[in-house]
Amino acid sequence: MKMLINVPESVVTDALRGMAAAHPELTVDADNRVIVRRDAPVADKVGLVSGGGSGHEPLHGGFVGPGMLSAACPGEVFTSPVPDQMVRAAAAVDSGKGVLFVVKNYTGDVLNFDMAAELAEDEGIQVAKVLVNDDVAVTDSTFTAGRRGTGATLFVEKLAGAAADEGAPLERVEAIARQVNENSRSFGVALSACSTPAKGSPTFDLPPGELELGIGIHGEPGRERRPMMTSREIADVAVDAILDDLRPRNPVLLLVNGMGGTPLLELYGFHAEVQRALTERDVAVARVLVGNYVTSLDMAGASVTLCQIDEELLRLWDAPVRTPALRWGM
Amino acid sequence: MKMLINVPESVVTDALRGMAAAHPELTVDADNRVIVRRDAPVADKVGLVSGGGSGHEPLHGGFVGPGMLSAACPGEVFTSPVPDQMVRAAAAVDSGKGVLFVVKNYTGDVLNFDMAAELAEDEGIQVAKVLVNDDVAVTDSTFTAGRRGTGATLFVEKLAGAAADEGAPLERVEAIARQVNENSRSFGVALSACSTPAKGSPTFDLPPGELELGIGIHGEPGRERRPMMTSREIADVAVDAILDDLRPRNPVLLLVNGMGGTPLLELYGFHAEVQRALTERDVAVARVLVGNYVTSLDMAGASVTLCQIDEELLRLWDAPVRTPALRWGM
Repeated sequence: MKMLINVPESVVTDALRGMAAAHPELTVDADNRVIVRRDAPVADKVGLVSGGGSGHEPLHGGFVGPGMLSAACPGEVFTSPVPDQMVRAAAAVDSGKGVLFVVKNYTGDVLNFDMAAELAEDEGIQVAKVLVNDDVAVTDSTFTAGRRGTGATLFVEKLAGAAADEGAPLERVEAIARQVNENSRSFGVALSACSTPAKGSPTFDLPPGELELGIGIHGEPGRERRPMMTSREIADVAVDAILDDLRPRNPVLLLVNGMGGTPLLELYGFHAEVQRALTERDVAVARVLVGNYVTSLDMAGASVTLCQIDEELLRLWDAPVRTPALRWGM
Repeated sequence: MKMLINVPESVVTDALRGMAAAHPELTVDADNRVIVRRDAPVADKVGLVSGGGSGHEPLHGGFVGPGMLSAACPGEVFTSPVPDQMVRAAAAVDSGKGVLFVVKNYTGDVLNFDMAAELAEDEGIQVAKVLVNDDVAVTDSTFTAGRRGTGATLFVEKLAGAAADEGAPLERVEAIARQVNENSRSFGVALSACSTPAKGSPTFDLPPGELELGIGIHGEPGRERRPMMTSREIADVAVDAILDDLRPRNPVLLLVNGMGGTPLLELYGFHAEVQRALTERDVAVARVLVGNYVTSLDMAGASVTLCQIDEELLRLWDAPVRTPALRWGM
């Protein structure tokens, strides 16, 4: 697999140098691997810190900015960042009002954010944590005990970030993050595996003519493999898998997310089928996002995330945000 | 090649249905294949209409909105839209101040926009046209007499769109579009070919271990094929090819554009190398955009576009824009 890189060892550092040059509104420390809002710490505001393995861009670095994350810590590709990065990020964004760690449910991330929380508290920073585990496809996986954290991460970071920007205290920001995660469910499919720079070849073998249902964001196996399906059929499977687990009574936020290698032309077409499937099942969609937000390098495929909302969450969704990847209202 | 579609015949219509559901701020006519700002025609404003083959998303539909295009006409994949679409778009956006057609230099597009301009003028709409032909890689190609239109299209649409929004008359909007095109140059590379839905397999054969320099946006052949190179080497080749043709004296706008299949992680790393190459050659960068904007379905690769600017063009670049793919300041 050919890649637009120098050497596999420098991929993350090179990308951070590129982010630094592209986004003067962020402070990007490529050596220590921390991306911070340039105006941090913002007085009297709870800090929001997330992070995880690289290879899911724009998650998380592309979600740093007013109205969303205060800082992000990228690890090596598909590898958890280390506690030092997280402590450094917490210290950079803490205004004295505390910091919320948004943690996707992968074993390495959970362990390292736990350790970082202890270290940060030793330094006098109040820390709360929220675990994102929205993927209905599998319980336990290659990298996870329990459900994986995938597309809902975007909703958690946006909605809790908006609450933090409004001046909510740590307990409230944490409660919103927890509510968003509990109200969110995801399901993804892969048409091709992804290739990591270190391995240089696909992470698993997906034969021509087959797709993998219930895929995660690291090329780990999903729920089952099937002969190739139409966009319409895939939308039905994804929506049914989600609604089997959470039947929304209220309108939802909908994320139709590309895994990286699927053209936007196909993704919009898939979105049309997801909308049809939701309409047929009497689920009302309040807001939509279609695009590549929580990716898996060059994997072809898509995921669907629903988040059941109330008036308060809708208001937080519509609140202004200004990050490299998500931007409106300012 | 597996695709997230229903049948190849409905790919564009399905995508337009998906766009319609995702973007209530646009009027998307999926049957007639015209995407229009919902508030069109805007009183006393020149209309900006573009279009071209589908498969380059978010170009052009993703650039419709305040501060950029008034309307876009998507053709079949890699196939020019027809004059009927363009006339319909012109009629929808004309406030009486006239319409500018932004035409990428491909034979079919040029012919059809010419015909549409005549038809629109017959209906009493004043029409001007600007041809975008920024690609320095090849003169004449599979689909073009003269140079191809690629990444500069984004600059033309943004800067002329900003001028139109400020109330500039048609002659002025046209002059700005022409100036932007004349001041812009692009060069692209492909690491893999793309696959069209109709063909279902790669449009050309690119062996493992080789890349194609000077690629266009349709999988048509480029300037030469070489053994695989590093990101650093590719940046040097692309920047030199551009600077051989246009040596900017002023600062530039820089677009580092992904062709669709290259992960954002790699694209940011490539951007770091392009910045280095420009610094070494004493080219000052005023503004940067890194992302997938003018794509070629699932092709892996990237292109570099420079646009030499003055204070007026910089001001127009910074002016507010609100479209699905480009959004700031409002």
